[in-house]
Amino acid sequence: MIDTVIHDASEIVVGPAEDRSRLKQHEDGAIAVVDGTIAAVGPNDAVTREYPPENAAHAIDASEKAIIPGFVDSHTHALFAGDRSDEFEAKLSGATYQEILAEGGGILRTVRATREATDQELLDQLLGYLDVMLAHGTTTVEVKSGYGLDTETELRMLSILDRADREHSVDVVPTFMGAHAVPPAYDSDEYTEIVIDEQLPAVVDQDVAEFCDVFCEADVFSVEQSRQILEAGTEHGLQPKVHAEEFVHFGGAQLAAELEAMSADHLLHADSSDINALDEAGVAPVLLPGTAFSLGAEYADARVFLEQGVSVALASDFNPNCHSPSMQFAVALGCIGMEMTPAEAIMAATHGGARALDRDTGTLEQGAPADLSLIDAPSHVHIPYTFGVNNVEAVMKGGEIVYDH
Amino acid sequence: MIDTVIHDASEIVVGPAEDRSRLKQHEDGAIAVVDGTIAAVGPNDAVTREYPPENAAHAIDASEKAIIPGFVDSHTHALFAGDRSDEFEAKLSGATYQEILAEGGGILRTVRATREATDQELLDQLLGYLDVMLAHGTTTVEVKSGYGLDTETELRMLSILDRADREHSVDVVPTFMGAHAVPPAYDSDEYTEIVIDEQLPAVVDQDVAEFCDVFCEADVFSVEQSRQILEAGTEHGLQPKVHAEEFVHFGGAQLAAELEAMSADHLLHADSSDINALDEAGVAPVLLPGTAFSLGAEYADARVFLEQGVSVALASDFNPNCHSPSMQFAVALGCIGMEMTPAEAIMAATHGGARALDRDTGTLEQGAPADLSLIDAPSHVHIPYTFGVNNVEAVMKGGEIVYDH
Ligand SMILES: [Zn+2]
Ligand SMILES: [Zn+2]
Repeated sequence: MIDTVIHDASEIVVGPAEDRSRLKQHEDGAIAVVDGTIAAVGPNDAVTREYPPENAAHAIDASEKAIIPGFVDSHTHALFAGDRSDEFEAKLSGATYQEILAEGGGILRTVRATREATDQELLDQLLGYLDVMLAHGTTTVEVKSGYGLDTETELRMLSILDRADREHSVDVVPTFMGAHAVPPAYDSDEYTEIVIDEQLPAVVDQDVAEFCDVFCEADVFSVEQSRQILEAGTEHGLQPKVHAEEFVHFGGAQLAAELEAMSADHLLHADSSDINALDEAGVAPVLLPGTAFSLGAEYADARVFLEQGVSVALASDFNPNCHSPSMQFAVALGCIGMEMTPAEAIMAATHGGARALDRDTGTLEQGAPADLSLIDAPSHVHIPYTFGVNNVEAVMKGGEIVYDH
Repeated sequence: MIDTVIHDASEIVVGPAEDRSRLKQHEDGAIAVVDGTIAAVGPNDAVTREYPPENAAHAIDASEKAIIPGFVDSHTHALFAGDRSDEFEAKLSGATYQEILAEGGGILRTVRATREATDQELLDQLLGYLDVMLAHGTTTVEVKSGYGLDTETELRMLSILDRADREHSVDVVPTFMGAHAVPPAYDSDEYTEIVIDEQLPAVVDQDVAEFCDVFCEADVFSVEQSRQILEAGTEHGLQPKVHAEEFVHFGGAQLAAELEAMSADHLLHADSSDINALDEAGVAPVLLPGTAFSLGAEYADARVFLEQGVSVALASDFNPNCHSPSMQFAVALGCIGMEMTPAEAIMAATHGGARALDRDTGTLEQGAPADLSLIDAPSHVHIPYTFGVNNVEAVMKGGEIVYDH
């Protein structure tokens, strides 16, 4: 039984070619889906001869449309309560970061709101964001805890991520990030101990989190504190991730390489030897252009990575300070802001994201999960070309159409 | 008979306050619509006492939603044939502007495609763009001719704009821009004569165009050529508009002031005395942040205008080189790229645009056309805060709901 045949697509983006700077793609292509996975992908004639659309339960005519793998958004802080749009407005009216903090704003405001919110409120807000992400072509999203900063709320956040994963079509990948900031009333050494001795054992006991992440940055967690937290996480079976080299060159990238972390993220101030170290250790570099865009800051230098032959991931970094849930927009910024080609940016947002999350999605090779988007344009190039709008017409997750414009 | 009452809106943006840097707005507001115009706007209690929702043909509960005037996009080149996404890709792969021109790319490629397209093809492509614009909250859009560069095609373009205006809910404001570029086989003096002696009389005879626009820029049309064209337009009843000071400081802004043009557009290199001259002559300055964004160029300095007390318009400049039809994204760039406050950017995209087109829309004052958007968020601040996606839930044009998500 063939579940679905998508035929006559003007372009199918399968994944990276052997030369990883290029796409493997088929013009005038087709895809057959059986049991939620890609049974065949290739030229329209070949695929439809083996899998005739008329024998399929569902046939989708993709004339004039491109098909790309579902986006894998490998870095978000999408679970939080409250609304910080007023801080966005205050900044544009000239308020400084210090003034906003003095008014009770910033991350600790989100922490307070998140602690006070009920589970249902937190879940509903997250499900709303997941709807928007899905409508923009995201089929897998990593979400970090880290707006609790106490054991109880960190556990609640991870448990809500688990519920969201079960209730929503988008796959939610949970990361424990107790070390997102140092809460008031502690110094960073004291809080590092709490993360290691209290939070981590409880998180592992609850058995939801897959990764452990640390904000390794000047005045947040030192390289040594970060190492201790991530090593403790590894002992408990959580793979490490590192927020590294965002504001200054600080050592987070070398730490990620030393620990063979799953990813190192931000990397605005990574140098050439950091990039080599990450590459040799098999750490996925994750770049977050939306953050730079929303702060009016410089972008990470994607071209240095790519010209050293190192593939990157693009992610949204969706959070109260970077409030765009669209991976299409991350792709547009990857191109317009970071000079990636559309092919490089699309691969970074799909295959690259999957690598940063240790998933087998982000590709449409035979045997991969049937997670994909139909684009309302004949090629992937239109995604960054037509920026600021939604170019996705329909989304399939695990073989089912779960969004249809 | 009350046609529609929109009640319990968490915020209604009416238009500029007396202090033009601030919004006139009502929290917990309502709007009554009668015969396609705003019959009343104000606090929910007052409006619904006079216009009870239960007596209206349609009642819309706008709880948790903001209402803003429809966007007035006062500068686009949205009528063209062909697809230049491949040039976008080539540029990101390192091709220079000269190489793209040598390959037959650039504006003259669009001119060839537009000349070759049938009226129906041109109309259909435009109607598709108008659908996307409407879904993003645009209720009035100016569209320029200027991809014909010969009398026959310029007339066809204007006639298609007239058809689109009649067939689509979005109001289409037609501008004649024969002087968009100098076509091959002419020098700019020869072509200026053709615009004045052949195109303008035919355009006026056809009686569709309302404005006459010129690309006043080094190596395109000189200030003197621009003056001749715009003065000839004025004699024929077409109000002048000027593409001014985009790439260098060239004199287009002073020309616009001298001719008391309806608007001067781009203005990246306008200086303080240009700004004063525009203001004293009552010329609307139109800023186009999407163009700068898509080219990776500097933005016009909106703050210099605003701090001299001069209101600006924001427009999309939608065209094959700046392929974002969303005024919401222009607003986001106005804030994030040009440091406008959300209030300033929303006013520039509504009231400012209407001023640049001599229209009475772009406001929700009593008596104005009922052109408005319901925002899927409690305040206008969310439009730039949640960038890269569509925050519009429904659009009303002339009292009718013409888009509903
Ligand atoms: Zn982060
Ligand atoms: Zn223009």
